[in-house]
Amino acid sequence: MNKSLFLLTLVYASVATTQLKAGEIADAPNGIAFPADYMSWQVISTSSRTDNETLRAILGNDIAVKAARSGQINPWPNGAMLGKVVWKQTSDKHWPAAIVPKKFVHVEFMLKHAVNYQSTGGWGYARWVGQDLKVYGKSPDFANECYGCHKPVKDQDYVFTRPAPMFNGSKK
Amino acid sequence: MNKSLFLLTLVYASVATTQLKAGEIADAPNGIAFPADYMSWQVISTSSRTDNETLRAILGNDIAVKAARSGQINPWPNGAMLGKVVWKQTSDKHWPAAIVPKKFVHVEFMLKHAVNYQSTGGWGYARWVGQDLKVYGKSPDFANECYGCHKPVKDQDYVFTRPAPMFNGSKK
Repeated sequence: MNKSLFLLTLVYASVATTQLKAGEIADAPNGIAFPADYMSWQVISTSSRTDNETLRAILGNDIAVKAARSGQINPWPNGAMLGKVVWKQTSDKHWPAAIVPKKFVHVEFMLKHAVNYQSTGGWGYARWVGQDLKVYGKSPDFANECYGCHKPVKDQDYVFTRPAPMFNGSKK
Repeated sequence: MNKSLFLLTLVYASVATTQLKAGEIADAPNGIAFPADYMSWQVISTSSRTDNETLRAILGNDIAVKAARSGQINPWPNGAMLGKVVWKQTSDKHWPAAIVPKKFVHVEFMLKHAVNYQSTGGWGYARWVGQDLKVYGKSPDFANECYGCHKPVKDQDYVFTRPAPMFNGSKK
């Protein structure tokens, strides 16, 4: 092993040991576990909130992505999980008219199960805040705040996000 | 097969036959083939352009995502491919302060190879426009337009996008 490779290995090992395992991140008060693989989920849409100057990427697990891309989203199927990654925004220093992510704010999820989460419209909610992924909410009642905000989109199965068109050659 | 399942199968078959295969989409004039699997790539960042009212999702192939998440992006490794999906934006009808994707504008790519694309800064460029994915550019020279615009970010290996922080438990 040459010196550069040795140093690189040390750096990598150092980074690796600072990773929390999924089990070290607290479950949401309604029992939803942090889906540590959300970074590998596919994109469903994106948004920008002018009221709080944030950018968002909306991702989905395999069930959600399949449903989104085949239009089976009213209702979404049980097991579909949507993840929304939220960043505070800033202007790109090389292209000031471009708004880009800056600080990670939180990542929040909706997990569909018509029976398990019947009291909150068929969706279980969860949110982890900041780079330490501190769980949001102190008791299962926290989800009533989420549900209350989502009630105006009951006709969209309580989901604000509409899947953005993504073409892979479909003429649909 | 019951009637509902039969009808569903018919609908699915109808959708499936309107798919173009990757080979039916013209290559870019510099020889880059349309990466028909880009919809399955993972997210690297997102952005909003106030100068032309568009939202963008920046995705990466496996090589690009690995590089982005380990900070090995100056230079990006050969084989890294970045995809930017661009949508015209609109206000969400249920949350007017939220800007969301409307019409698909185009999807564009940067493919890194320091030698093959040496004349355009080590990146091959490609763009497909509209839902018919019409190839952009008439001759290989089209990439000079892209390259010219990217020259101000030479110190970022010609890439505007900075990977957005995505936490899966890393305390880094």
